[in-house]
Amino acid sequence: MTLSAEELAARIGGAVEGDGSTTVSAVAGLEEAREGDLSFCKDPKYAKAVALTKASAILLPDTWSAPFPCRAAIRVASPDEACMAAAALFAPPAPVRAPGIHPTASIGENVSIGRDVHIGAYTVIESGAAIGDGCVVEAQVYIGENCRLGECCHIYPQVTLREGSVLGKRVILHCGVRIGGDGYGYTHEVRPDGSISISKIPQLGIVEICDDVEIGSNTTIDRARLGRTRIGACTKIDNLVQVAHNVQIGSCSGLIAQSGVAGSAHIGNGVLVWAQAGISGHIHVNDRAQIGPQAGVPQDVPSGAYVIGTPAGSLRDVAAIALAPKAISKLRAEIREIKKKLG
Amino acid sequence: MTLSAEELAARIGGAVEGDGSTTVSAVAGLEEAREGDLSFCKDPKYAKAVALTKASAILLPDTWSAPFPCRAAIRVASPDEACMAAAALFAPPAPVRAPGIHPTASIGENVSIGRDVHIGAYTVIESGAAIGDGCVVEAQVYIGENCRLGECCHIYPQVTLREGSVLGKRVILHCGVRIGGDGYGYTHEVRPDGSISISKIPQLGIVEICDDVEIGSNTTIDRARLGRTRIGACTKIDNLVQVAHNVQIGSCSGLIAQSGVAGSAHIGNGVLVWAQAGISGHIHVNDRAQIGPQAGVPQDVPSGAYVIGTPAGSLRDVAAIALAPKAISKLRAEIREIKKKLG
Amino acid sequence: MTLSAEELAARIGGAVEGDGSTTVSAVAGLEEAREGDLSFCKDPKYAKAVALTKASAILLPDTWSAPFPCRAAIRVASPDEACMAAAALFAPPAPVRAPGIHPTASIGENVSIGRDVHIGAYTVIESGAAIGDGCVVEAQVYIGENCRLGECCHIYPQVTLREGSVLGKRVILHCGVRIGGDGYGYTHEVRPDGSISISKIPQLGIVEICDDVEIGSNTTIDRARLGRTRIGACTKIDNLVQVAHNVQIGSCSGLIAQSGVAGSAHIGNGVLVWAQAGISGHIHVNDRAQIGPQAGVPQDVPSGAYVIGTPAGSLRDVAAIALAPKAISKLRAEIREIKKKLG
Repeated sequence: MTLSAEELAARIGGAVEGDGSTTVSAVAGLEEAREGDLSFCKDPKYAKAVALTKASAILLPDTWSAPFPCRAAIRVASPDEACMAAAALFAPPAPVRAPGIHPTASIGENVSIGRDVHIGAYTVIESGAAIGDGCVVEAQVYIGENCRLGECCHIYPQVTLREGSVLGKRVILHCGVRIGGDGYGYTHEVRPDGSISISKIPQLGIVEICDDVEIGSNTTIDRARLGRTRIGACTKIDNLVQVAHNVQIGSCSGLIAQSGVAGSAHIGNGVLVWAQAGISGHIHVNDRAQIGPQAGVPQDVPSGAYVIGTPAGSLRDVAAIALAPKAISKLRAEIREIKKKLG
Repeated sequence: MTLSAEELAARIGGAVEGDGSTTVSAVAGLEEAREGDLSFCKDPKYAKAVALTKASAILLPDTWSAPFPCRAAIRVASPDEACMAAAALFAPPAPVRAPGIHPTASIGENVSIGRDVHIGAYTVIESGAAIGDGCVVEAQVYIGENCRLGECCHIYPQVTLREGSVLGKRVILHCGVRIGGDGYGYTHEVRPDGSISISKIPQLGIVEICDDVEIGSNTTIDRARLGRTRIGACTKIDNLVQVAHNVQIGSCSGLIAQSGVAGSAHIGNGVLVWAQAGISGHIHVNDRAQIGPQAGVPQDVPSGAYVIGTPAGSLRDVAAIALAPKAISKLRAEIREIKKKLG
Repeated sequence: MTLSAEELAARIGGAVEGDGSTTVSAVAGLEEAREGDLSFCKDPKYAKAVALTKASAILLPDTWSAPFPCRAAIRVASPDEACMAAAALFAPPAPVRAPGIHPTASIGENVSIGRDVHIGAYTVIESGAAIGDGCVVEAQVYIGENCRLGECCHIYPQVTLREGSVLGKRVILHCGVRIGGDGYGYTHEVRPDGSISISKIPQLGIVEICDDVEIGSNTTIDRARLGRTRIGACTKIDNLVQVAHNVQIGSCSGLIAQSGVAGSAHIGNGVLVWAQAGISGHIHVNDRAQIGPQAGVPQDVPSGAYVIGTPAGSLRDVAAIALAPKAISKLRAEIREIKKKLG
């Protein structure tokens, strides 16, 4: 949608300054904005960035006094709120996924499908699966035998759920998510002749994902060897995250992009694992702990602790190592001084 | 399947204690078990965890004497073995993939399909491909031109094999595996006017995967620039692993989740690369070496060595750095002492 | 294709030595070559590897004098060039993607399709999308509502583009690429009773990918919260890379496998981010900077700088830490000496 500054102000409120016929069709930050964009700034400390922006129009607080190079400004009480309102206007219209089963969807025997369910083109649902009321299962999804989806789940294209996976209500799985793959488990045996025999350990469990969990693109969550790999309610997982077999994650936790959790680890409630961090197998990361970016955690983490580094320790531990070269230089100088004294 | 403790004992052996009518329908660890679960413990050192479990029933060794809060126990000679037997009973039934080609499968010209092959819905097999006897190619798979699959491979949904990929016998590829994508290769040229021109280097080789290899969800293995990227027999690769063009991996090696191997690196036989570790291009990691979690390996690793850290070194090297702050404190104290003496 | 050494020499030039009837069907490096392979060497410093190669035939420079174990050699002016020419002969024939829309493709309303476009089997293109002239959209691709593809893009199987994504000309997306997934954004609110409420922040923006960008298998690029996540012209991204919402990447930059860029970070032009490195949110990595493998970058990086380590610093900083144990040993010895003197 393209709107003039005047039309925009009429919709989101605010007073136009400059050329009210200036048209905009997208929202962008000060630095990346270009011709045709609307930008925004609430704080005079960014006056420099405002002075350099290429946006055609800008949302500014009523109190703004510094110059701005845009052809139009809209004065508003809260640029943040006005910006969100404008972004909602310019956003690509949300696709409509009306209830109905696409004629090309391949539905197995004894599949139970609730009311107001959307199933997209070329989606495959194997026998015995149950899809709750109001679910949206987009195109090209694979749902294995006996999977169960609670109400109002949203499964984006090209997700796979292996057999027996269980999803609660309002679970969102983004494109390419893999639920229920076999965990990595083998036995190694050295034969009498010295050669090695590697056998696959059957992965007999399932994955259970609780209500209001959201999982990002291409993340993988393996089925349990026994019992269940479990993601607790309201936990949010980013893209390209690995959750190994038998991991137990509590509620309201967050796993940021490319982090990984090894087999049978326990992650508590309200835990935050930052990007690219790794959690070893069989350990406990307790409630409200935070694992810093790229940290490697070899052992239990107490409730509320913040750890970083590999192997992960306190910020103080990591800082001590980072400061070691400086400390060494100082000691070296002192020793030189002592030697001089000693002659 | 739901079974009473008595029914279960009748199937897997053992003596029931407590309420034999207690029903269970899944196996779970002591800590994560809940109402309706069967748990297990073999070692008295976990007596505390047993005392806290919420399992309805538990497998315990004949010799167990500590208290347990479950409504029923089954005394067995080996809780580990009994647990596996019970898990097999409770496991979701393994999906049947009967021989046959789904009518929606799109099969190109001159495709050779062996005996007893299953090909699932919406799978695409391009011209010239050959699928060995007993292969299971599940739904929504893509198999490019002239790919060859040996006997009894299992290709899970939504795997892609680009043209010319070669698989041995009994290869297992989990959902979202990408075989044969172009390697990352470009030439940079600075033009007379100072601008940069970037050209793609043709990636003319293939990927060759030997017998009994298993590859986890969303792992990517690039085709060679020339010749072949090769994964040796019986090597097991976990989820979200990157194997770049022209990498050569020997047999019986393991690459754990989110690890990566850069172009033209050689990994020997029986090597273990732990999670999130990275191997630089063009180096040799020799037989039976182990690369610790998150290690970054810039140079050759000798046979049987264990390296950790970035840049990767011996455990001793890494420990020395970790202990540097302590060593510095000690030196500081000694210098203070000396200064005091010197006045 | 299988060729005798003589046939090969006739095609790529060069003088045959040894048994000209020796047949080869693939190119391989000295070390990995086997029966039936053609290998190559240009530099006498690799004479040892040549002596050990199992290749059937080898390309050698006219001036080569060391022994070689292959049944045939072809003497050429430039083994590198000859090798590329031979590899092109042996390469699996490039699949033909003739213009045309596969009858199983599911095309929504008001989709605009240019001239000479190929659309593969089971591909879904939602309403309002526009596919430029000469595009190849392979099988099983998903293209969401109102996406726009410029001329001559190549979209490999099983890519997903969420609604509103915009691609320039000649963009290449490899299998499993995910464009336009929701960014990771939530608000946390502590309710009066102490419980936590987590709400999803609407992700209202799009992804914009400029001309000549290539993106590797299973890489994920999230849509902006507002405005656009943007990948500049000619930037090349490897496999399994994460690009979070609102990231801005300039032109001619490179992101190697498994690296990640957090939300709203700015990456300049000609920047190189090595494998498994991580860039924090909201920072600027300026033109021509290089981020070393596995580096973790918490703050701005100046133009042309090279940083490594976590937290990332100069090579000098990292070396100082690595050398700390040695420096400490030396200081310890000096103190011992001083103490001896002091008695």
